[in-house]
Amino acid sequence: MPKIKKLLVANRGEIALRIMRTAREMGIETVAVYSEADRLSPHVNYADEAVCLGPPPSKQSYLLGEKIVNVCKELGVDAIHPGYGFLSENANFARMVGEAGLIFVGPSPESIEVMGSKLAAKQAVAAYDIPLVPGTEEAISDISIAKSRAVEIGYPILIKASAGGGGKGMRIVDSEEEFEEQMQRAVSEAQSAFGDGAVFIEKYIGSPRHIEIQVLGDQHGNTVYLFERECSIQRRHQKVIEEAPSAVVSPTMRKAMGEAAVGVAKACNYYGAGTVEFIVDEKLDFYFLEMNTRLQVEHPVTEMITGKDLVREQILIAEGNPLSFSQEDLRINGHSVEIRVYAEDPKNNFLPDIGRLETYRRPQGPGVRVDDGFEEGMDIPIYYDPMIAKLITHGENRQDAINRMIRAIDDYRITGIQTTLDFCRFALGHQAFVSGDFNTKFVELHFSPEKLEPIFSPEEQELLAALAVEFFQKEESRLSPTQPMKKAPTTNWTNRLI
Amino acid sequence: MPKIKKLLVANRGEIALRIMRTAREMGIETVAVYSEADRLSPHVNYADEAVCLGPPPSKQSYLLGEKIVNVCKELGVDAIHPGYGFLSENANFARMVGEAGLIFVGPSPESIEVMGSKLAAKQAVAAYDIPLVPGTEEAISDISIAKSRAVEIGYPILIKASAGGGGKGMRIVDSEEEFEEQMQRAVSEAQSAFGDGAVFIEKYIGSPRHIEIQVLGDQHGNTVYLFERECSIQRRHQKVIEEAPSAVVSPTMRKAMGEAAVGVAKACNYYGAGTVEFIVDEKLDFYFLEMNTRLQVEHPVTEMITGKDLVREQILIAEGNPLSFSQEDLRINGHSVEIRVYAEDPKNNFLPDIGRLETYRRPQGPGVRVDDGFEEGMDIPIYYDPMIAKLITHGENRQDAINRMIRAIDDYRITGIQTTLDFCRFALGHQAFVSGDFNTKFVELHFSPEKLEPIFSPEEQELLAALAVEFFQKEESRLSPTQPMKKAPTTNWTNRLI
Repeated sequence: MPKIKKLLVANRGEIALRIMRTAREMGIETVAVYSEADRLSPHVNYADEAVCLGPPPSKQSYLLGEKIVNVCKELGVDAIHPGYGFLSENANFARMVGEAGLIFVGPSPESIEVMGSKLAAKQAVAAYDIPLVPGTEEAISDISIAKSRAVEIGYPILIKASAGGGGKGMRIVDSEEEFEEQMQRAVSEAQSAFGDGAVFIEKYIGSPRHIEIQVLGDQHGNTVYLFERECSIQRRHQKVIEEAPSAVVSPTMRKAMGEAAVGVAKACNYYGAGTVEFIVDEKLDFYFLEMNTRLQVEHPVTEMITGKDLVREQILIAEGNPLSFSQEDLRINGHSVEIRVYAEDPKNNFLPDIGRLETYRRPQGPGVRVDDGFEEGMDIPIYYDPMIAKLITHGENRQDAINRMIRAIDDYRITGIQTTLDFCRFALGHQAFVSGDFNTKFVELHFSPEKLEPIFSPEEQELLAALAVEFFQKEESRLSPTQPMKKAPTTNWTNRLI
Repeated sequence: MPKIKKLLVANRGEIALRIMRTAREMGIETVAVYSEADRLSPHVNYADEAVCLGPPPSKQSYLLGEKIVNVCKELGVDAIHPGYGFLSENANFARMVGEAGLIFVGPSPESIEVMGSKLAAKQAVAAYDIPLVPGTEEAISDISIAKSRAVEIGYPILIKASAGGGGKGMRIVDSEEEFEEQMQRAVSEAQSAFGDGAVFIEKYIGSPRHIEIQVLGDQHGNTVYLFERECSIQRRHQKVIEEAPSAVVSPTMRKAMGEAAVGVAKACNYYGAGTVEFIVDEKLDFYFLEMNTRLQVEHPVTEMITGKDLVREQILIAEGNPLSFSQEDLRINGHSVEIRVYAEDPKNNFLPDIGRLETYRRPQGPGVRVDDGFEEGMDIPIYYDPMIAKLITHGENRQDAINRMIRAIDDYRITGIQTTLDFCRFALGHQAFVSGDFNTKFVELHFSPEKLEPIFSPEEQELLAALAVEFFQKEESRLSPTQPMKKAPTTNWTNRLI
């Protein structure tokens, strides 16, 4: 069995650092790659060796698969960890790595390929009794056939053009009465847009939850699931708060989802760490969406509740080791929440707010973990995903983990740029989140920029601060020499009146 | 049941911060107290309110119990957490707090009193079948009686003056042949030193392990144990590395120790968090030493393996809540190690090395926790215990926790003062520690300052660094434009050749 001695991390920022830390704990040497924009990045400094790949954007650096393989040969590297994004789900890159005699810390190129195509994935899982969103298997153009299929599926349904994309020829139909008219419109729209009027019909899940299952498989046919992650709090269709376990998944549902996820993994002979994504409707029925054949951004919440280091497991699997535990050995320990701290302005549609981290102080304490790739004084580069950090908390139960997260958000000190911290604090305190009754429409349903406005106007704040100073000066003289000091709030005025 | 709304933390540094974080998570307002030497300390800044008690040393500030109680009255505080040290085991202070109508977050004054006296503690536990170090219960001066008692106890035995202290009249006897001579010497030494020749005889445990049990009791008679902490790695009779669980405690031994500890707690009607200390001999027989009636410095390793927040439990108990879990609900999850990062020079007999934290960067990543009370640029004050931080790691098993700790030590960046980091790295890598075969004599048996010397002399280091630069410059031009960069080691040169 090959023992990995030197690992190149083909990624940047927090995930590169996170992978290198585990590699170092395993006694493995590390090599960083970087773009010119990242030359001062902590991941470059942390590695034993570092190689500049070229300038940004990624096409000229982080996506240069062949160059990365050549670096490995020059430096005697024996394995590559792709992280997430960039080359992580590129089957050709995985194949090239293998052909160069290197270990790819991830699944086989074939697994990546199958799960990279919606159609191939659907075909692969067909034999495994995996719940899919109910719908027609073939394109239809006959209205009466379509109507009877719609009744079978149950309203609301979604009509979408077979040849389509971008919402063209797409119609949501709430009841049978509307069906004929909407179908005619969809067909004619599809006909004029794509020259093909055929459509698919499938169940419309309007306000889904996004719940995913972490799986781990070795190269000897053993596959286990590490329970679920709830990822329904999203903005711009991107996850921003994740947690494990989900507030709504019962032990029975967990087992059913876990076994379905293992089925999906087995359907493509999967090995390594992977994530099977499901959408879940209001009745808590779940449907297979897709499989991500890599480590997820939100993997830490699973690590917190299972005690497993997923990067370590990935490396052990890549070396050919059998899994050292079985499904029965795994259990959920407490609750974990992760928030993504993005350099974005929640008051301006979550648009990136690039700039310098003037102040940057991490929260600390029991059950608090920060995975990041920046230091105070650094600039957030414009070329990449503007995530600054992931803040993760663990608690004995869901409410403890949430309370700890709110405390940790209050303790985080970031100035110089806008971040998603305030938004996350708002969301975590919202009744819908606390009760567990939320879905991917959370932002649209419950959030608007005014929710982050201070309770008092700027003028009122100034007045209050002045009054506070006066009051406490008086108190001080009264209590002297005890000198009590009540701090005039400097940051987080919005959130906490002290 | 009184709900605590405002908590004063009668302590400083890391433990004050650690307590306030949990208080904030529980929605409790916090009040800091501080000495003039600590006015820039993070615990002062973190609290909602802060009061200066006076100048250092502690007698003029942190030990002013009456002043602290008055501050509580002035500021509407309803509870006091004493942390560890200072007033934490002062029964009079606990009584004064209660009499002022405030909640003392700790046990009753009576429990503190009983366990604060060796004799009273021994009497209290007499009915509870707690193993004590075998010995005579009364002072003896007759040699033949003493000799027969010594045979019953078993050699080696310790003879110590009844009236004594400071090693006077103390003799270790390895076998019966030496007994008479040693006893005569001890008696005459005691006679001349204290005017009283009576001696006690007890079993001599020469190379003990120090293993302690964490207990939690509520005010309704429920008491549980949260397993053991191994604290045998000490320097100058003070703990420096702790872990949970112990490498040598079997499930049977754990249960026996746990039940003995619960017995000790019940013997003094204990409520709150407490620690029952045992010494353990080479045959793994354990003997009750004393009970610490407060939170311990090393409590985090217990939190890591049980998932319980001990400060939270303390506060809930102080409010009068019954424990929310029973013994059966508790289990050990993985392994945790803590090292104490002291401002001390291990090469100079672990003497304090006070100064400024020129660089101060904490390690991060999964399973790593830092509890500290300083920031970069701060001075370590000369007036207090020179502990800078506690570095805690958690792993799936003992070796994982150790590997993670070594990685975290390597990632810690402290310049400006000497610390125990290098010593801890040495100890964690030592075969005796790794195998679990160690005791409180570890430093004396295995450590000497040369062990921390660099592998190369300063001249050799300089030469190597120069060669490395030349080599990598050549490599760089050869591989250009890939520009590999091998970092010339800046810190940790001693430990890691890269």
